[in-house]
Amino acid sequence: SGDFVLVLTCPDRPGVVHAVSSFLVGHGGNIVESQQFGDQLTGRFFMRLDFLVQGEGAEQVTAESLRSDFADVARRFDMTFELWEARAPYRTLIMVSKHLHCLNDLLFRYSTGSLQIEIPVVVSNHLDAEPLVRAHGLEFEHVPVTPETKPQAEDRLRELVEKHDIHLVVLARYMQVLSDQLCSELSGRAINIHHSFLPSFKGAKPYHQAFDRGVKLVGATAHYVTADLDEGPIIEQDVVRVDHGFNQQQLVTAGRDVEAQVLSRAVRWHAESRVLLNGHRTVVFR
Amino acid sequence: SGDFVLVLTCPDRPGVVHAVSSFLVGHGGNIVESQQFGDQLTGRFFMRLDFLVQGEGAEQVTAESLRSDFADVARRFDMTFELWEARAPYRTLIMVSKHLHCLNDLLFRYSTGSLQIEIPVVVSNHLDAEPLVRAHGLEFEHVPVTPETKPQAEDRLRELVEKHDIHLVVLARYMQVLSDQLCSELSGRAINIHHSFLPSFKGAKPYHQAFDRGVKLVGATAHYVTADLDEGPIIEQDVVRVDHGFNQQQLVTAGRDVEAQVLSRAVRWHAESRVLLNGHRTVVFR
Amino acid sequence: SGDFVLVLTCPDRPGVVHAVSSFLVGHGGNIVESQQFGDQLTGRFFMRLDFLVQGEGAEQVTAESLRSDFADVARRFDMTFELWEARAPYRTLIMVSKHLHCLNDLLFRYSTGSLQIEIPVVVSNHLDAEPLVRAHGLEFEHVPVTPETKPQAEDRLRELVEKHDIHLVVLARYMQVLSDQLCSELSGRAINIHHSFLPSFKGAKPYHQAFDRGVKLVGATAHYVTADLDEGPIIEQDVVRVDHGFNQQQLVTAGRDVEAQVLSRAVRWHAESRVLLNGHRTVVFR
Amino acid sequence: SGDFVLVLTCPDRPGVVHAVSSFLVGHGGNIVESQQFGDQLTGRFFMRLDFLVQGEGAEQVTAESLRSDFADVARRFDMTFELWEARAPYRTLIMVSKHLHCLNDLLFRYSTGSLQIEIPVVVSNHLDAEPLVRAHGLEFEHVPVTPETKPQAEDRLRELVEKHDIHLVVLARYMQVLSDQLCSELSGRAINIHHSFLPSFKGAKPYHQAFDRGVKLVGATAHYVTADLDEGPIIEQDVVRVDHGFNQQQLVTAGRDVEAQVLSRAVRWHAESRVLLNGHRTVVFR
Repeated sequence: SGDFVLVLTCPDRPGVVHAVSSFLVGHGGNIVESQQFGDQLTGRFFMRLDFLVQGEGAEQVTAESLRSDFADVARRFDMTFELWEARAPYRTLIMVSKHLHCLNDLLFRYSTGSLQIEIPVVVSNHLDAEPLVRAHGLEFEHVPVTPETKPQAEDRLRELVEKHDIHLVVLARYMQVLSDQLCSELSGRAINIHHSFLPSFKGAKPYHQAFDRGVKLVGATAHYVTADLDEGPIIEQDVVRVDHGFNQQQLVTAGRDVEAQVLSRAVRWHAESRVLLNGHRTVVFR
Repeated sequence: SGDFVLVLTCPDRPGVVHAVSSFLVGHGGNIVESQQFGDQLTGRFFMRLDFLVQGEGAEQVTAESLRSDFADVARRFDMTFELWEARAPYRTLIMVSKHLHCLNDLLFRYSTGSLQIEIPVVVSNHLDAEPLVRAHGLEFEHVPVTPETKPQAEDRLRELVEKHDIHLVVLARYMQVLSDQLCSELSGRAINIHHSFLPSFKGAKPYHQAFDRGVKLVGATAHYVTADLDEGPIIEQDVVRVDHGFNQQQLVTAGRDVEAQVLSRAVRWHAESRVLLNGHRTVVFR
Repeated sequence: SGDFVLVLTCPDRPGVVHAVSSFLVGHGGNIVESQQFGDQLTGRFFMRLDFLVQGEGAEQVTAESLRSDFADVARRFDMTFELWEARAPYRTLIMVSKHLHCLNDLLFRYSTGSLQIEIPVVVSNHLDAEPLVRAHGLEFEHVPVTPETKPQAEDRLRELVEKHDIHLVVLARYMQVLSDQLCSELSGRAINIHHSFLPSFKGAKPYHQAFDRGVKLVGATAHYVTADLDEGPIIEQDVVRVDHGFNQQQLVTAGRDVEAQVLSRAVRWHAESRVLLNGHRTVVFR
Repeated sequence: SGDFVLVLTCPDRPGVVHAVSSFLVGHGGNIVESQQFGDQLTGRFFMRLDFLVQGEGAEQVTAESLRSDFADVARRFDMTFELWEARAPYRTLIMVSKHLHCLNDLLFRYSTGSLQIEIPVVVSNHLDAEPLVRAHGLEFEHVPVTPETKPQAEDRLRELVEKHDIHLVVLARYMQVLSDQLCSELSGRAINIHHSFLPSFKGAKPYHQAFDRGVKLVGATAHYVTADLDEGPIIEQDVVRVDHGFNQQQLVTAGRDVEAQVLSRAVRWHAESRVLLNGHRTVVFR
């Protein structure tokens, strides 16, 4: 028996759920978990289904065969969809610079199996992360970046994405701005953690801005990468309380816990196909 | 066009969603919001559907006619279900003693239309609440309780529930323990707010217990009333941070905000048919 | 025996605490609660002291006599200070427009004695609040505002502040922008609630902006009024989680609870002399 | 110039703060941070002072010399006190079994310098933690425990505490119950993380109990070890929201983040001398 996940979006109209459930019944599928959302503003419908295929003939059923069979339903309702084995790990490339708290958090969760990912390689423009990565038995690649070598560095990244069949790039406090071209190429499959509660404090040094403004909470935002810096669709946000006693460095330290937690949630949800794009917003079926 | 809500629970098996969606398609129904949950431990399936009936003949469709038509599906899958007009207000009787913060919160939300309830009467064993109730233009009934008159007081409550066709009784800091008999009668349609994070600090004076134990958070729990005091199915809980500087009275004050918020959420969800019983636990489709 | 509160700020240098504690010892004062903060960035020191004056001669001691006696210490250390009876209620004028949730919350807390304020009058440019205000036995004054009558309306407000000896003006969702001149006059003694997590979504319709940006948390900010709109020193902020299922109206509703709580905390702290200005930031001795 | 921290508790009476500030002035001390708390219930006073000794002769001033000089003040006011160099790291022994999330969190924070501790040795009754500990360049000692060898195992622990001059023992999900005798010996200098919101769900398998009770939040509690299991003074607690969709394993996973954060906060505060015992409760000067 196989466990599969189907995510889809289409114009909302009567009969969508019926068509999908008919498809499932016809393939011996039983729903484990299902979530739906109809956006009344845009008229779009979003659905995530986790289902088991059991019984006679179930062992012949694969994600590929289901995808092929579902194409007809998708065409009829003008759906965009993805269908995967529910437990297939996302092939994930992590990029990091000198601050390792997000990387450490992701690697530890990976090591305990609580993130449904594989990590073929971790890339950094510095060497600080290497021991941590090696301690987890993972491949580390040093790709230094200078203004002059940036195009080559990005080409190297493209090669790694290609070579390792990467589904998801995670910018775990990677402090280099990617080129517009690369952002576009990775659109929808790269997640960045911004160390503020966006849209507050866009750009560099958000904790310094937060300190100057005298805020009482600091936050972090995980979002998809788009060419428009810090404006990508938000996946998750959270905050932590601070007070007048926090200096800039203490704000930074307080924020790190939130950054790591927010990013790991975003990665977990993405890897379990729980995040769907809805224009420049997201639908998250937690 | 009508807006209806269907909630159901049944043994989980293939075809349930298909049968329900077939029913909807057959009645011109279009799903606005849908949530499902299959409890793998108990093998039970839970579903909530908000759907519009539109198009030709829609004006003849009523909750009653849909209920009658759905009975066959329900029988086939051994379902327990309820089906209502989605915006029909719950007829709610509120009971209170001397602490009015939960009552004030409920009445204000009621006055702004953010709770889908009607309040035919507020009952109290004291007179403190009367001015607040009258200020909202609502009926107030004083039902004093002494150990001797408790049976008569409970009979009066039964009469009020009967007379006003009450669907939901809310114990908004009502400090009298209801008899086992009355608890049983109201089972599943009475919500109590307990002023602690259950199961910590059951029974009387939970803030005193919390203070003695030196806890760093205090909480509140909204739960269905059952004969087993403070053991009813939990609908909602929340906490607020306290510290060593809080004396007992300050714990009480800090807790009040949480009590009011937790209770109002529970009432809102119940009135929108978002809470389903799953043994002595609840499924809450927020 | 009297209970007094002293708040002060001065350049940080050795001997400040010793001078203050010497003063207390010399006046039979015993510290109930004390908080201090030295801002290493600005080199300023902040202190709040709640102290009892007991023993022989205590009944002759008044806030006025203490203030007069403390002037010498203050001069020596270049202090700005205030000294009050600790339980003296702040005379507070509340302004509101059509959304009453913050007003309702403040009035209820006032009625239970959990805010250390008196409310000589509630002012509104609309009539919606009148019944609620009257139900609490308080004075209501209707001061309509049009572009033409704004100067007169502000003059009327000044008269009310003067006549009622107002210490604090609370803008509890008052939807008129005050003139720069009035903002300056009220500087440091007027608190506004902004319905977003500042500096996100300044200006009008913050929930609409929040919706468009697809944020996962919405918030509220209580701040002192300054001529620079939405840029005044922040006293308190909080947020509440939302998700893709919230439309604009639901964001508004979710945010209201946070607005009311954030504003009431700010008012409570201000009325207990717990908030000190530190440039355009605040020190809050909670 | 030296930076020192003084924590003290004594019966609350007039003149305590004055005596301490006189001592500081007499030793050229300038207060960086100060917190006080008078417990009106028990009549005890608690104080934490972080102060700099600067100017002529400052280089001769040591924690030891200050301690010796302060003894007279302490005697006069019947104080219990500790006085340390403010940045001296706490010598900390960590114990762990098979669940490594708390250990990983502590070691990472240690590696970034955000915990003021040294870790001479990590002890476990299993071998799972060894690679993680070695990757941080720390000493690992395997001390297996069976019912028969428990006394020897505890003797070995005592030797390690002695040999490494340990100030603090952290039970970071160490799943063996310590003997009453050892608990008494370590009283006030051993911190345990309990994986529930105490006093809910004492004892083993708290997440199973939480699941059965259908709670909507799960939590964790860091507390000092005492002979009375799970009843030691609470240092810190926190919770995370769960819902009906969480099975037992998912509750466990959700709880881990809270456990790690709560424990690391408790260790940080303890190592910075911010936690004082007040009977079976704690005063935490955050």
